[in-house]
Amino acid sequence: MKRVEQHVCFGGMQEVWSHESATLGCTMQFGVYLPPQAAEGPCPVLYWLSGLTCTEQNFITKAGAQQYATEHGMILVAPDTSPRGEGVADDEAYDLGQGAGFYLNATRDPWAKHYRMYDYVVEELPARVERHFPASDARSVAGHSMGGHGALVIALKNPGRYRSVSAFSPIVAPSRVPWGEKAFGAYLGNDRESWKAWDACELVAGASERLPLRIEQGGGDPFLDEQLQPQLLEQACRAANHPCDVRIRPGHDHSYYFIASFIGEHMAHHAAALKR
Amino acid sequence: MKRVEQHVCFGGMQEVWSHESATLGCTMQFGVYLPPQAAEGPCPVLYWLSGLTCTEQNFITKAGAQQYATEHGMILVAPDTSPRGEGVADDEAYDLGQGAGFYLNATRDPWAKHYRMYDYVVEELPARVERHFPASDARSVAGHSMGGHGALVIALKNPGRYRSVSAFSPIVAPSRVPWGEKAFGAYLGNDRESWKAWDACELVAGASERLPLRIEQGGGDPFLDEQLQPQLLEQACRAANHPCDVRIRPGHDHSYYFIASFIGEHMAHHAAALKR
Repeated sequence: MKRVEQHVCFGGMQEVWSHESATLGCTMQFGVYLPPQAAEGPCPVLYWLSGLTCTEQNFITKAGAQQYATEHGMILVAPDTSPRGEGVADDEAYDLGQGAGFYLNATRDPWAKHYRMYDYVVEELPARVERHFPASDARSVAGHSMGGHGALVIALKNPGRYRSVSAFSPIVAPSRVPWGEKAFGAYLGNDRESWKAWDACELVAGASERLPLRIEQGGGDPFLDEQLQPQLLEQACRAANHPCDVRIRPGHDHSYYFIASFIGEHMAHHAAALKR
Repeated sequence: MKRVEQHVCFGGMQEVWSHESATLGCTMQFGVYLPPQAAEGPCPVLYWLSGLTCTEQNFITKAGAQQYATEHGMILVAPDTSPRGEGVADDEAYDLGQGAGFYLNATRDPWAKHYRMYDYVVEELPARVERHFPASDARSVAGHSMGGHGALVIALKNPGRYRSVSAFSPIVAPSRVPWGEKAFGAYLGNDRESWKAWDACELVAGASERLPLRIEQGGGDPFLDEQLQPQLLEQACRAANHPCDVRIRPGHDHSYYFIASFIGEHMAHHAAALKR
């Protein structure tokens, strides 16, 4: 573990760390914000999963979340969105390959060797965070767009491991929308049955716990009708009797201007669950 | 005037506009944040001047200022840091030419033709803003690093035109530090007497009004001792009996993590002056 950035921010410390990932077989970076309370003892952790094309930088520079992490005494961890590097399979498209890991474990070549973002985010990253930083084992998970899909899937597949989940503009039904169909076809192959294990709308039907779940969606998001369709998750949650608090925000788009506007409410949502 | 970006944000609208600048002889972009109060009537305006290498994007995506603009009902205007384009003189260095206009009117070739950021920021930009947006003529000015120099110089040279001034990590004595000596030598020539008209420490000696002036400086800023030296402005203000509120913030560096941490306090400083 090597620290590559360190900035005092809102009374705490925004850092970026680099490490060799055994899970992904490449060098990875992640952002970690340590609030001032971390100097006194272990703090709960919110994991943030970013969207297509992002690195660990987008959330830490644009969301303005650090002020709320200081308010609530929460650590923020923001990983990259895929394995990286010259030896890692890639594609010219923005929505496949590097920058587009989709938080799953790929089973098809050439992706299967490195594309294991699910295992990285669920196992390796928390193990590193809880060993190297004053982090308690109280965890929540949130994300944006592809990362909103990741947050929902990771929370639903791991009952007892996260206290709460939230997402901005998530891909809730990747098996049924173009972004997901393209990525799942490449990473998992054409057997659509195998896709169900990575689709929040499918997973919620079998959920064994009732996690606090909040969704923020811009009403002016250009991807709303084709790629996002949050009503599919609302329907699935209603059928499964799972909580699902979806807020449609008129006029808001898919950008970090939207995330910055409501990240404080999401941090409060997670803080309430993490402090229980 | 052509709108090239529009994002709902904190109840208002973050926009980016493009226009042909008569002053600079090129196409320019600037960011403007319109708080919800702008729908009801004219609002005061805070002009933000960015530092070396920045465009209009840095402040609007990283500072988190929009939430405070909504709180106080202030419009935020963030111009680019120099003229731009293929026909505009440039230099390979990051601290000269495009991205490094230093908010002055150049007198030497090849810079004199386009490099008139002082006239642009003081005259053309406010005229456009006050014509196209619900902006009152209550103005304040702030900036970072090279833009902190710009804010101080512009406020001090135009008594009656701004209600307040503030700066993060400003170059307060450009005539006496490497960044300023290089830029002034290129843009203004080697007659150091001509530099005094663009040096805040020189201008404050002749200031005819007493503007609320606040400086934020990171104690861990790597440029502090060589390029910034805020004590030179404190001394000049003391000698001139001009107010000067300098806050040294331990550990903070030169980044937007520093700006984001204290922009709320600067917005409150300006709001108090703008609402008088």
